[in-house]
Formats: sequence, structure tokens, C-alpha cells
Amino acid sequence: MTIEIERRFLLKNDGWRQTASAPQRLQQGYLSVEKERTIRVRIIDDKAWLTLKGYISDVSRSEFEYEIPAAHARIMMDTMCPFKMEKNRYRVDFGGFVFEIDEYFGDNAPLMVAEIELPAEDTEFPRPDWLGEEITADGKFTNAYLSKHPYSTW
Amino acid sequence: MTIEIERRFLLKNDGWRQTASAPQRLQQGYLSVEKERTIRVRIIDDKAWLTLKGYISDVSRSEFEYEIPAAHARIMMDTMCPFKMEKNRYRVDFGGFVFEIDEYFGDNAPLMVAEIELPAEDTEFPRPDWLGEEITADGKFTNAYLSKHPYSTW
Repeated sequence: MTIEIERRFLLKNDGWRQTASAPQRLQQGYLSVEKERTIRVRIIDDKAWLTLKGYISDVSRSEFEYEIPAAHARIMMDTMCPFKMEKNRYRVDFGGFVFEIDEYFGDNAPLMVAEIELPAEDTEFPRPDWLGEEITADGKFTNAYLSKHPYSTW
Repeated sequence: MTIEIERRFLLKNDGWRQTASAPQRLQQGYLSVEKERTIRVRIIDDKAWLTLKGYISDVSRSEFEYEIPAAHARIMMDTMCPFKMEKNRYRVDFGGFVFEIDEYFGDNAPLMVAEIELPAEDTEFPRPDWLGEEITADGKFTNAYLSKHPYSTW
């Protein structure tokens, strides 16, 4: 088990694109979406993972992640996941930290969210000028919520 | 993925104990309990599995099972599973088939259920005289239902 400490932000502008990696395409399906636990299938290219997350605080979550055969993940996605989403993920290195920028597709477009993983809840980190409002504590911006209530329907 | 084809029965008497194996103690926790999908953590001694089951029919279910570290399973059981149960499982060989007899503890005592896994939904199999009423299609006897609504509360 790992503890995932993550803060999330909206984006003010497209400045991050100048130093972003090429995107990875993420397909995600949710088998269970509750505040206390989310169970996610993720497919990137020909690899897949099953991930369970428990709630510790708005910033911290317990996380168990297991790689599974992509063929299993595709069947789960097609037959067992009531909620699905797709997004592009970009990596942006900034001041010794890594920001991940998610660009949502489908019903969640044109939402974009920046995430930063931190070693502790109170770790200080630099704020690039494209970083917008913090949404860490806003449950509406979690992937779990977005999968049930897509951004375009708000 | 495997397809699990399973029929379940109550027990008429204790005759099965004469040829039963020593029991295994199963601890089970449920992360998700819905007709369309159940997600189960199972611990037997120092081994553990994460199992996802989807619904095909009352008799057949799709099943994905992954061995996971027992230490992970214990944390999931303690922090993420709203529903838990314990049972002893006995194996009984009869006429070339294997029956598994589950003896429930705690709030589900004194329930006992016999299960047989079959290669096809219409496979014929012998009926030992201790085999009672079939409950395959009775959702109340599924482990998922019992974990939420224990037998002793019926």
C-alpha cells in the first residue's frame, strides 16, 4: 500500500504546453465510486492496472495498485464498469516537481486539471503562473465524481 | 477471465462430514456488492486474493482473480470493506465431482451451504443424500447478500 498525497488545480492558461511531454492516452473505468473507496481500471496502450483507493483526507488517499492483463481490463471496462472516461495526460517538470496535466475528452471536455503528488500534506512547492484555482477539496472535480456527472452537464 | 458456473444447495443433514476434508478458514470482505459486480478480498492463512465477479446468469458469473499480498488484504479488510464474513470451507469428493461445504460463523451462523462448480450450466451431477434444497437462483443466499443481511437477522 502507498499513501497518495495529491493536490489538484484548474489551469489559468495554456503556458504549460511549452514544456509538456507528449501525452499518454488514459482509458479509465470505475467499478465502484464512493467517497470511502474507488475501484478503477486503467488502460494505457497495451498495459492495464486495477487500483483501489481509500479515503484518508481530501489530500491523502490509501492506494493499492496491481498490474493486470490488458485483455482482462478491456472485458471489465466493457462489461462491468458503469462509469468510464478518457483523457490525455501530460507531464510538466517545474522547479524540481512534476505536474501532471489531464485533458478530458467526451462528456468531460473541455475540462483540464493539473495534479501534483507530494511527499507530505504540508510540502511547499513552486506555483507556475499557469496554475489556477486549487480544487483539491472540491469533490466535484474528482475523477470518480466526473465519471458519474460529466463536466459538460454541470 | 474465467466463467464460474456454480450451483448451490442447503444441507439436509450432517452426512457429508464423514468424507469431508479438514476445513480451511476463509475471511472475506466485500468492497462492492451489487448484482452486476461484486469485488471481494479473501484471506486464507497467509495468502490473499482480490476477486471481481460479474453477472451472466444466476448460475454463471465472469470471474477475475488476482493473488495479492496478505498484508494488503488485511489493510483493505480493516479500512475499506463495509461487509465482512468468516466461514469454514470443507471439500467433499462425491461421484467424480467436488462439493464445497461452507459453514458460516458470526451473524451468519448456523447457515451451511454446499456448492458445486460445473463445466456447463446443464452438466448432470450426482446428488448425495445429504444434499438439500437448491438455492442457486435465490439471491438471499449469495455471500454478497449475506454479508449485508446476515442469516441470523432473517
